[in-house]
Amino acid sequence: MRASRFFISTLKEAPSDAEIVSHQLMMRAGMIKRLGSGIYTYMPMGLKVIRKVEAIVREEMNDAAAIELLMPLVQPAELWQETGRWDKMGPELLRIKDRHGRDYAFQPTAEEVMTDVVRSEIKSYRQLPLNFYHIQTKFRDERRPRFGLMRGREFTMKDAYSFDRDLAGMQASYKVMYDAYTRIFTRFGLKFRAVAADNGAIGGSGSHEFHVIASTGEDAVVYCPTSDYAANMEAAEALPLAAARPAPAQDLVKTSTPDATKCEAVAELLKLDLAQTVKTIALTVETEKDGKSTKQYFMLLLRGDHELNEIKVGKVAGLAAHRFSTEAEIDEVYGCVPGYLGPIGTLGPVTVVADRTVANMADFVCGANDAGYHYTGANWGRDAAEPAIVADLRNVVEGDASPDGKGVLAIERGIEVGHVFQLGTAYSEAMKATFLDENGKPAPLQMGCYGIGITRILGAAIEQNFDDKGIVWPTSLAPFELVLCPMGMDRSEAVKEAAETLYAEAKAAGIDVILDDRGLRPGGMFADWELIGVPHRVVIGDRGLKEGNLEYQGRRDTEATAVPVADVIGFIKGKMAA
Amino acid sequence: MRASRFFISTLKEAPSDAEIVSHQLMMRAGMIKRLGSGIYTYMPMGLKVIRKVEAIVREEMNDAAAIELLMPLVQPAELWQETGRWDKMGPELLRIKDRHGRDYAFQPTAEEVMTDVVRSEIKSYRQLPLNFYHIQTKFRDERRPRFGLMRGREFTMKDAYSFDRDLAGMQASYKVMYDAYTRIFTRFGLKFRAVAADNGAIGGSGSHEFHVIASTGEDAVVYCPTSDYAANMEAAEALPLAAARPAPAQDLVKTSTPDATKCEAVAELLKLDLAQTVKTIALTVETEKDGKSTKQYFMLLLRGDHELNEIKVGKVAGLAAHRFSTEAEIDEVYGCVPGYLGPIGTLGPVTVVADRTVANMADFVCGANDAGYHYTGANWGRDAAEPAIVADLRNVVEGDASPDGKGVLAIERGIEVGHVFQLGTAYSEAMKATFLDENGKPAPLQMGCYGIGITRILGAAIEQNFDDKGIVWPTSLAPFELVLCPMGMDRSEAVKEAAETLYAEAKAAGIDVILDDRGLRPGGMFADWELIGVPHRVVIGDRGLKEGNLEYQGRRDTEATAVPVADVIGFIKGKMAA
Repeated sequence: MRASRFFISTLKEAPSDAEIVSHQLMMRAGMIKRLGSGIYTYMPMGLKVIRKVEAIVREEMNDAAAIELLMPLVQPAELWQETGRWDKMGPELLRIKDRHGRDYAFQPTAEEVMTDVVRSEIKSYRQLPLNFYHIQTKFRDERRPRFGLMRGREFTMKDAYSFDRDLAGMQASYKVMYDAYTRIFTRFGLKFRAVAADNGAIGGSGSHEFHVIASTGEDAVVYCPTSDYAANMEAAEALPLAAARPAPAQDLVKTSTPDATKCEAVAELLKLDLAQTVKTIALTVETEKDGKSTKQYFMLLLRGDHELNEIKVGKVAGLAAHRFSTEAEIDEVYGCVPGYLGPIGTLGPVTVVADRTVANMADFVCGANDAGYHYTGANWGRDAAEPAIVADLRNVVEGDASPDGKGVLAIERGIEVGHVFQLGTAYSEAMKATFLDENGKPAPLQMGCYGIGITRILGAAIEQNFDDKGIVWPTSLAPFELVLCPMGMDRSEAVKEAAETLYAEAKAAGIDVILDDRGLRPGGMFADWELIGVPHRVVIGDRGLKEGNLEYQGRRDTEATAVPVADVIGFIKGKMAA
Repeated sequence: MRASRFFISTLKEAPSDAEIVSHQLMMRAGMIKRLGSGIYTYMPMGLKVIRKVEAIVREEMNDAAAIELLMPLVQPAELWQETGRWDKMGPELLRIKDRHGRDYAFQPTAEEVMTDVVRSEIKSYRQLPLNFYHIQTKFRDERRPRFGLMRGREFTMKDAYSFDRDLAGMQASYKVMYDAYTRIFTRFGLKFRAVAADNGAIGGSGSHEFHVIASTGEDAVVYCPTSDYAANMEAAEALPLAAARPAPAQDLVKTSTPDATKCEAVAELLKLDLAQTVKTIALTVETEKDGKSTKQYFMLLLRGDHELNEIKVGKVAGLAAHRFSTEAEIDEVYGCVPGYLGPIGTLGPVTVVADRTVANMADFVCGANDAGYHYTGANWGRDAAEPAIVADLRNVVEGDASPDGKGVLAIERGIEVGHVFQLGTAYSEAMKATFLDENGKPAPLQMGCYGIGITRILGAAIEQNFDDKGIVWPTSLAPFELVLCPMGMDRSEAVKEAAETLYAEAKAAGIDVILDDRGLRPGGMFADWELIGVPHRVVIGDRGLKEGNLEYQGRRDTEATAVPVADVIGFIKGKMAA
């Protein structure tokens, strides 16, 4: 490509609404252009990167025997009603009425359409396994779109759907996709981590997220540096901090703690370690039966310095549909104000759920169910009844024991760019997608689904790879692998000839090269390509040519290397492979 | 590709709603699958063809210095309001409200977004010319979607937009696109014709349509076999049938023609040639001025055997906003009933507009403005005042003189698959898309726009190329160029080995080959590939192998050719190039 025939449009300043570095740099590098809230035009420079992402994804999906098709964007509401998601999905689902008043959804994902396709196509176990994918635009009407391509409304996703005859087949298909994803993210040249994840609303029995590691990532990724263990924060299991509960050493003392409704304030007031305090969270579960509403009350106990993990709470038996209790409920049930609740004393209809760590604590500090007072030296069995339920309720922290027993946990920040799910038969049963098994009996298809946020990859790659000059693309994702910067191409015949020769050689060698023939001064030219983030640069100048040299500089190099003209292609190939 | 790893799903019968052959064959060949009215999933076999179409379009667009980007599907209403198209476009424009109640359009085309992009990007004449394109999904909410991909609602289009500093530049850009389209359709291997077209609602000063020729096409394509002249029916100019008007030879006679309100009935009743009759069409033009409505009346005259061309009528001065007169208006103005109107006698406020052919007629038959009576032997000047306006009002017919004076016109049927427009400054003025010219003065961008119906190409190609066995793809569009059909691959080691060797060789030779390893019987296997329309087939069987031969058969060949194993690749390459 010649720069004069491409469209290059760089900015000195990012627009003020660009809050994060990838959004700022993509705007400044002329890769995207805002059309509306969370809606972007992919400018030529940005589209080139998207195409590189797509090509790698497509190659690896095909190699993994997945078959590409293309499902429509505008999908009839009837299919979404079959699975109940027409109602279940909130305003994130963009709903459309056509000229006849019929309802449609702009696809945020395609489980329903895919299941509809296969239920008429797959008749026999002999046709299985099958895995279909498409790379297609999605729309999710985010309440607050931001961060450029990281949380846009219109975006591109690769979504794949596997179909198997039984659980073992589905798990094998899942493994094939997990391995393909590992190859894909490796080929992207990004530092990433696959972590066990909670299946969430999509249902099913197992899933992993693929995160690009970046200090600016909005997700916490938990891993064990000395083993294979890795999970997201929602799924990372917290073991009890002490294997067994120590014996009581202190007496129970009721202490005045005015205005200390938080553990931090209590610890400061009493000059105690925050890790000796226990915080109480009051929950209510409302159930309807025969038109009558019943309320159950739960008291959750967490160590003062720990964070509640709501996903884990939702998995405790009876707590799937919990909410925080209201002040009126707390007054009625505990006869106390929030901030002074605790497990000691008459608790009436309350079920106590202690975090594993709390269950193993001794001589702890907790609310006295009396406004303005806490207990110190509290102990299970002696002062408070043993908790009815002990469960993992908290987020893990750095240094927690790894659940696999092979070390301690570390935490880093990640950006979720891929997700693989074991769906099981949730969709196939709802939509009656069956096949005839070996015995001629109908059975529901075992499904998996597998997503990669194509456009999000761009944002994530930049969050991981940038410096104060701009983007630093890995070679596999760069809009161009190599830029040729001739100095005074219009003035010097020698420069022009050397530049054109190298341009032709680079193309012949299969390098995605751009020749900057715009006639800019060196400063502006270099600044553009450093901002855009092309990983390899060769400067062609009269001075170097006199000595038979060109100047190579990698995007992260602090200075240039003189390379003999004849060796340049080989030299660049070597750098590209490095 | 191995068939066992691809998805092949053929049907013996087409669904009953498939009215035309391309729709039927695409459904039977498993290329598309209906999701909703005018909305199709592109199945793997169909998507492969779409990708071939896209690749050719992309290569030629890039070669023509057009630059690819990707504009969003969901477009803010504000932009469509700037050009007035939010109101002007009817229910075909799919309108969407987001969660905040803001209005958007699902793009049917992208003039507004493109103009919005460039108005902030193009500052100086030095940046021009520029031509941007994208290959993107479109949605047009057709009242009655049908014919599969030929008139769907969701479809894929390539749309390009050129920007120039002046009219000459825009016309040069237009020529570049016209030539690129000619190369594109030539590479498709389709018989096509570029015809001059009317610009229609999109505005501007010139346009051409590209039609794939097919007897089932819904458009009439006019051309001159002995010259370059070609136009669509709307634009093809009809010259007067006689160069000068003959002198009157008959007397004017008022004749009773009861129940003969149509020219056909009058000609039959009076035993005259239909070409001697003149039909009258009464039009009304209503104009509002200072809140007062004024009506003007026009009488259009057409030879009895000719068809009215409404586009041409709309171009006559004063007739842009015409409508057919009501019976009440006709009664009031002519004092007569429809069916007996004519240009002879007191016409009050009526302006007579005669078609060129009618203006040169002598001794013609026309209504007498008296219910139940016609005149015969009518002549201009003598019996009727010379028509106030003479214009081209009719569709051309086969045998009409070519407007370029180089022969006579022929008519064939076509399917419109491409359209190039000279837009001028209609959009850039409405949206204030200006640049600074050489004198530093702002000037509106001169625009052109250029569309190709990517998915429609599939339908059009099939309408042109099919037989009773199925589709006959041109090699450049075929989902696979070559199919290998081994006979009893599971039984014969020799067949298996020869098939695998040829498969590897074909891939190495850059042929898009599929090896049918499904283990079907020959009949079913051949029927599948004939239906799908793969243009080249090689059968590998024990019998042939014993003599060192394989059997080649082109999709249109009536019998196979024995080719020595060692020569097969060269032989196929020769056939592919033919």
